[in-house]
Amino acid sequence: MAPMKKKPLALSRVYRVIETGPVVLVTTSRKGRPNVMPMSWHTMIDFDPPILGCVVSDRNYSFQTLRTTRECVINIPTVELASKVVKCGNSSGKTVDKFTAFGLTPRPAARVTAPIVDECYVNLECEVVDTRMVASYGFFILQVVKAWIDSSKKGPRTIHHAGKGSFMVAGETIKLPSRKA
Amino acid sequence: MAPMKKKPLALSRVYRVIETGPVVLVTTSRKGRPNVMPMSWHTMIDFDPPILGCVVSDRNYSFQTLRTTRECVINIPTVELASKVVKCGNSSGKTVDKFTAFGLTPRPAARVTAPIVDECYVNLECEVVDTRMVASYGFFILQVVKAWIDSSKKGPRTIHHAGKGSFMVAGETIKLPSRKA
Repeated sequence: MAPMKKKPLALSRVYRVIETGPVVLVTTSRKGRPNVMPMSWHTMIDFDPPILGCVVSDRNYSFQTLRTTRECVINIPTVELASKVVKCGNSSGKTVDKFTAFGLTPRPAARVTAPIVDECYVNLECEVVDTRMVASYGFFILQVVKAWIDSSKKGPRTIHHAGKGSFMVAGETIKLPSRKA
Repeated sequence: MAPMKKKPLALSRVYRVIETGPVVLVTTSRKGRPNVMPMSWHTMIDFDPPILGCVVSDRNYSFQTLRTTRECVINIPTVELASKVVKCGNSSGKTVDKFTAFGLTPRPAARVTAPIVDECYVNLECEVVDTRMVASYGFFILQVVKAWIDSSKKGPRTIHHAGKGSFMVAGETIKLPSRKA
């Protein structure tokens, strides 16, 4: 495998790639077998260290792995990967090796066992730090412990699910004089 | 005030306007005095009844009102309102009547005391249903009890904060054959 071309992304900047609300691919790994699922229901919770919250239904194969291993990677795809993202959502890791089936490349992460999806422009290596809301809502709280970015990707065309396979693709960026983070 | 032109949005469809991750304006009201603040840190939690989670920092003037009144409206602006959204974020309801100062129109809601922002294309009237994570993270869990939409707005150009006053504006919509909600 060729060396990774991505660079570390400062943890204090993670919120800037998450708070726009992109579809992400969540990778997990159990007994040496990686899995990947798309997810839209996530939010930033805190800036630095970066804390995220996300909903993973117990109907998903990834649920048990995430709860047991307490690790995952949040990978952010761009529009070129949209059809692969949907294929990952239409199948279950219970019966399909999605990496092989859909041509995604698992790459070893630095801090967690779950793999990075090489094709995604951002990868956030995460540890589960709070499971108090898992029973009620499937809501996991994650801390990002290492982050990577392909910094050649300017104005990344992320995809944002609007239900039933409808995706809004990121458009132009505007800049306004905000005093906020 | 002219009658509202918006129509009810079925509660089962609320997730479709939230899961793309738009900046929203949160309105609250205390002692007859409404306030409005922008927010990007929110996620869907469940489909129907629609449950949302959002982070409101205790540094924000809206925090105490939300905690005390247990009500708010989540309003979704489009790009025409971007400069007003930023002005709302650059000021505090403690010292400024933001509706008057920035030319936003508060309209009575149907089910809660907090007002609707008339200029926003979607308004979600919400009740706080779970405060267990407020002490740890400022994370409120809301149930949408009534929803409104300006259905003339096709492909709404929502804005998605990327930090420091940088906003991604919603681009084109693509449709892929997903078997998921």
